[in-house]
Amino acid sequence: MKIINDGFDVGTKSRNQMIDITARVEAIVDKAGIKDGDVTVYCPHTTAGVTINENADPDVGHDILLTLSELIPAGQPGYQHSEGNSDAHCKSSIVGCSKQILVKDGRLLLGTWQGIYFCEFDGPRSRKVFVQARGE
Amino acid sequence: MKIINDGFDVGTKSRNQMIDITARVEAIVDKAGIKDGDVTVYCPHTTAGVTINENADPDVGHDILLTLSELIPAGQPGYQHSEGNSDAHCKSSIVGCSKQILVKDGRLLLGTWQGIYFCEFDGPRSRKVFVQARGE
Amino acid sequence: MKIINDGFDVGTKSRNQMIDITARVEAIVDKAGIKDGDVTVYCPHTTAGVTINENADPDVGHDILLTLSELIPAGQPGYQHSEGNSDAHCKSSIVGCSKQILVKDGRLLLGTWQGIYFCEFDGPRSRKVFVQARGE
Repeated sequence: MKIINDGFDVGTKSRNQMIDITARVEAIVDKAGIKDGDVTVYCPHTTAGVTINENADPDVGHDILLTLSELIPAGQPGYQHSEGNSDAHCKSSIVGCSKQILVKDGRLLLGTWQGIYFCEFDGPRSRKVFVQARGE
Repeated sequence: MKIINDGFDVGTKSRNQMIDITARVEAIVDKAGIKDGDVTVYCPHTTAGVTINENADPDVGHDILLTLSELIPAGQPGYQHSEGNSDAHCKSSIVGCSKQILVKDGRLLLGTWQGIYFCEFDGPRSRKVFVQARGE
Repeated sequence: MKIINDGFDVGTKSRNQMIDITARVEAIVDKAGIKDGDVTVYCPHTTAGVTINENADPDVGHDILLTLSELIPAGQPGYQHSEGNSDAHCKSSIVGCSKQILVKDGRLLLGTWQGIYFCEFDGPRSRKVFVQARGE
């Protein structure tokens, strides 16, 4: 049983942005030599997150970010946090800060249309992604 | 340490539907012979998800689907994805495409009222569920 | 490879409340003697959840709970569940009932500003948290 901790940096360019990190996660699992097991992709930030969604049409990411921003507008009356980014903290808790992906025969068990996305909600910023692969 | 990959098919009948898959996950953990460890229930689709919620009163599932559809209506102005199912993609990222359940003494460590649900957001469709059980 | 099942009780005082449980999770990982691996924090209730968000300014928790309550008001027309807490069930499925945190060199791999929170959505109540630490 191997447990491999790795990770990478992500530079974001907009306040809200979804960045496809699938290939970077695949490369870590490949390098770790995990054939069967699982991998966790973890965002150590409180105004960003990780999601899995369609990787074919970039318009899907646009529409997810649009929906989140319409549901959770910046500067909502009643917000007490003084940094002015409470919307980003809320989006982080709703999308979640990590995702777990299964590994079989050395491949990520993603669906045909699934990609792994780093979700920036308070960019642009320099971000980190932690990746832990476990298995044999 | 065992790592067992398994799964099953789910046929959905409505555009939005919650289907209790607890017994099917339990059967896989039982067959895998895992006594202590965990199991991941993973949906490889981008317009569906997996959640854990009340299994006693089916009205709870109705109310969750109602809330999601009121928050994220189909055909919202500004959506760019041409397939017309951006609402389903958004619901998938909000509910999440997988859940992890602990296993102890050969049983799923669910709460008294908890069941595992496949959430269809763009049905009716034929769907797959991946299940990975890990442990001893 | 160790798999340690543990947990603790949480008493909540308000209908909606976020309680920092980071130190209690750390203590379990420490006691389990896990150096590298992961830990899952699992809420076995259907009207509560677990999230990871900022632990420096308590106003962030206030703003997350405010946003969730504005998005999902109690007593929404159309709710069928007779217990009157459908909003709490919806919040639980949106925030999620568990979180996975990585462990490296005996420490939780949380970001600088991250804490682990038990989220009460239908309190005050006596609640349980399950914790499973896995690793070496």
